[in-house]
Amino acid sequence: MNILIRDARVILPDAVVRTSVGVSDGKIAFVGTELPQDFKYDRVIDARGDILSPGFVNAHSHLPMTLLRGVADDLNLQKWLFDEIFPREDRLDGGMAAIGARASIAECLAGGITSVSDMYFFCDDIAREVLNSGIKANIARGLSGYFDGASRGTHKGFCEQEQLLRDWHMADDGRIRADISIHAEYTTTPELWRDVADFAREHRLILQTHISETEHEHAECIAKYGKTPTEAFLDAGVFDSRVCAAHCVHVTDSDAAILASHGAAAVHCPCSNAKLASGIARVDELRKMGVHMALGTDGASSNNALSAFSEMKTACLIAKLRDGDPTALPAAECFRMATSGGAYAQGREAECGEIRPGMDADLVLISTDRPNMMPLHNELSALVYSADNTCVRMTMVRGKILFENGEHTTIDCEKLRFETERIRAHLA
Amino acid sequence: MNILIRDARVILPDAVVRTSVGVSDGKIAFVGTELPQDFKYDRVIDARGDILSPGFVNAHSHLPMTLLRGVADDLNLQKWLFDEIFPREDRLDGGMAAIGARASIAECLAGGITSVSDMYFFCDDIAREVLNSGIKANIARGLSGYFDGASRGTHKGFCEQEQLLRDWHMADDGRIRADISIHAEYTTTPELWRDVADFAREHRLILQTHISETEHEHAECIAKYGKTPTEAFLDAGVFDSRVCAAHCVHVTDSDAAILASHGAAAVHCPCSNAKLASGIARVDELRKMGVHMALGTDGASSNNALSAFSEMKTACLIAKLRDGDPTALPAAECFRMATSGGAYAQGREAECGEIRPGMDADLVLISTDRPNMMPLHNELSALVYSADNTCVRMTMVRGKILFENGEHTTIDCEKLRFETERIRAHLA
Repeated sequence: MNILIRDARVILPDAVVRTSVGVSDGKIAFVGTELPQDFKYDRVIDARGDILSPGFVNAHSHLPMTLLRGVADDLNLQKWLFDEIFPREDRLDGGMAAIGARASIAECLAGGITSVSDMYFFCDDIAREVLNSGIKANIARGLSGYFDGASRGTHKGFCEQEQLLRDWHMADDGRIRADISIHAEYTTTPELWRDVADFAREHRLILQTHISETEHEHAECIAKYGKTPTEAFLDAGVFDSRVCAAHCVHVTDSDAAILASHGAAAVHCPCSNAKLASGIARVDELRKMGVHMALGTDGASSNNALSAFSEMKTACLIAKLRDGDPTALPAAECFRMATSGGAYAQGREAECGEIRPGMDADLVLISTDRPNMMPLHNELSALVYSADNTCVRMTMVRGKILFENGEHTTIDCEKLRFETERIRAHLA
Repeated sequence: MNILIRDARVILPDAVVRTSVGVSDGKIAFVGTELPQDFKYDRVIDARGDILSPGFVNAHSHLPMTLLRGVADDLNLQKWLFDEIFPREDRLDGGMAAIGARASIAECLAGGITSVSDMYFFCDDIAREVLNSGIKANIARGLSGYFDGASRGTHKGFCEQEQLLRDWHMADDGRIRADISIHAEYTTTPELWRDVADFAREHRLILQTHISETEHEHAECIAKYGKTPTEAFLDAGVFDSRVCAAHCVHVTDSDAAILASHGAAAVHCPCSNAKLASGIARVDELRKMGVHMALGTDGASSNNALSAFSEMKTACLIAKLRDGDPTALPAAECFRMATSGGAYAQGREAECGEIRPGMDADLVLISTDRPNMMPLHNELSALVYSADNTCVRMTMVRGKILFENGEHTTIDCEKLRFETERIRAHLA
C-alpha cells in the first residue's frame, strides 16, 4: 500500500519543512511536494500542517511489567522490589506476560512509539505479541545468575536466549530482532559476562544491560571487583559488541570514555530514575563526551507510563535541575535521543530514526490543533515540552498504520482491558 | 439541569468508592447508589467504572502567556526574560490577551482543570474569557512598580486592580473572584506592599505573589532589606490576608513558619521551576511544617503546557530526586495539592476541591480504558503517575459540562487555532 502524507510539517534531520512524504512498500519513497511520476498512492492523509515526526524509540523497557503498574509506589527500592515486585513476578506465566506486553505495545503505539527494546522473560510470548501488533522490537532474555554454578549449556535463561535467537531473530524481515542481555553487574557473575560477550560477538547481537543505575550498586561493584561496572564489563569483552546500557546514572568520566570509544548507547530513563530516586544521569556531559544517547521508559511499574512525550519533557526538566542551568539538554537534542539515538541503540540506524528516502516508514503524525499545541512557534519545542498523547493522530510502522484517531488497528483494547483487569485481580 | 453520574470510581476525601454522584443546580446533591426520592435527572452519564475526581485547580498561571509558548526555550533566565519575553509582551494588547487566555482555558478544561488563579495584565479581557468559558478563576492584576514615585491613586496597575474589583469580583455568583497581587518583592517597593496589604485586608481578598522563586532574588532581598522576601512581606502586613505564594523554592524554615502560621498557601510550580532551573521546592518539608500546598503550571512560556497530570507527576518525581528518597511526596499527597490544596489557595475550600454533598460540582471524569490506565491497581497512583489528558472524558464546572469526548462546549477551538496563529505571526 502506498500512502501520500500531504502538507505536513516534516521533521527532517536538520530542518522542519512543510512538505509531503510518500510511503511505498513500507519505506519512505520521497520527501517533497512534487510527486515522482511513478508514484501512485492508495490513500492520501491530509496532514493540514500537523507535524510528521520519525516514530519514537523506547530503548529500554520491560513490557510485561505493565501488569504491575501502580501496584506499589512511593516505597524505597528494596521494599518495592523485594516485597512488592518480585513476589508478583513469580506468579506471572507466559499467557499473562503476553497480555502485559500487548498492553504496553498498545500504550506505546498510542503515544507514537514505533520501536521498543525489551529485556524480560517469556520472550517467546512477547515476540508473538510484537509480531501480531506490528510494532518493532529488539527483545532480549534478561540473563541473571550463574551463581549456582550453572554454565551456558545448563543455564535456563541462556537456553531461552538461544531459542529466542533461533526462533525470532530477524523475524518479519528484521522487524523483530533478538538482542542478548546481561541483566546487570550485581545480578550476574564474570563467567556469565564472558559467555554473553562471546555469544553477542559470535552472532553480532546488540547487548542490553543495566549499568550503574544506583549509587549503591556502583559502589558495591567497586568494593567487590576494584572496578566500576563499566570497567568490569570491558574486561569481560562486553563492549566488543554494541552495548545498549540502560540508566548510566552514576557512570564516571572513565566509564563514559569506555562507552564512547566502543560505540555503546546509554539509555536515559528519567522518569524511572526519578521515581526510584536513583539520581539524574548527566546526559549533556555524556553526550559531549561522545556517548550515543537514547531514551527509555523502563518498566511501567517504576514510571508509571510508557510515553515518549513524558520522557522527553522530564529528561529536559531534570537535566536543567541537575546542572542548575536552563540551557542544559535543549529540546532538539532530547528529540534526537528519542528518535535517531534510539534507533542507534537498537542497531537500526540505517533503517529508521530519521525521515529520509529509503528509511522505513516509521512515522507519527502529531496534531497541532489541540489547545496545548497553540500557537506553534517551534515544532521541536512543541513536541518535547507541550505535546502529549492526545496529539498523536496516527502511528505507522513500516508503512502500516497501527494507530489512528484514537483507535488501534491491530489490538483489541476492550478485550485487553478485560484481560489486564483479570490478571490484576490475580496479582493484587 | 440535573445529572446523574453512575458507576464511577469516586475519589472521596478519604477513600475511593465505586458509586454514583448526583449533580443538581451546579452542586453535588448526593453521593451514593440510592437516589434520593426527590432527585430527578435530565441526563445520565454512565461512568462504567471510570474515575470521578474533583476538578484540578491550577493555582498559579499567567493565562495570556500561552501566546509565547515555545517562542524561546532552553535559555538562561535573564536572556529569556529580557530578550525574548518582555519585548513580546510589550506588543500584546487586550484583544490578543483575550485570545491567549481563551487558548489557556481551553487547554485547562481539556485536562480536567476546573479553576485557575491568574496574575497578569488585561484583566478585563481575561475575566470576560473566563465568564464566557464557564471555568472558575481568581484573577489578579500583576502589580509591580512604585519605583517612579507613583502611589495608589496614580499607579496604573492599582487603578486597574480597583476596576477589576468593581467590575468582576464575585461575578457569576462567585465563579470569578478578584484577587490582588504584589508581583514579587524584587519588582516592587515596600510602599506598594503596604498599600496592597491594606487593600487586601479592606476587601478581604486573596493576595497573590511570587516568593523566592530563584536563589538570586532571595539573596538580593536579604542584601537589600536584611530580610527574606517572606519576612519583608510580613512586616508590611501582607500576611494579614490569605497569601497565595507561587514558587517558594528558596524559602527558609523561618519563612515556612510565617507561611504556616498565617495560613498562606505555597503554590508549587515544578515544571516551570525545573525548566528555568530555579530549583526544587521542598514540598514535603513545607507540608509537614504546616504550610498549605497547592500546584500551579505557571505561564505556558516557561512550562510549556498547562496540564495538572504533568504537574502532579513532575512534582512527585522531582521531590524524590531532591530528597534522594522514593517515599517523598506520595501520590495521594500530590493529588490533594492539585485539588483541595488549590481550592484553599483560592479561598474556595468551602466551595470546591472535594467531592461531597453541597460542594460545587466541579468534576472531571477520567477514562480507565486507555492503555496507559491498564490495569488499574490504584486510582490515585493512576491519576498522578499514569494518566494524561487523553484520559479526560468530561470536565464539569458547577454542573455545566465544558469539555466532553474531546470537544469543548463553550470554546470554538478551530477559530481559536486560527486566531492564535495570527498572533503568533505578529509576535514571532
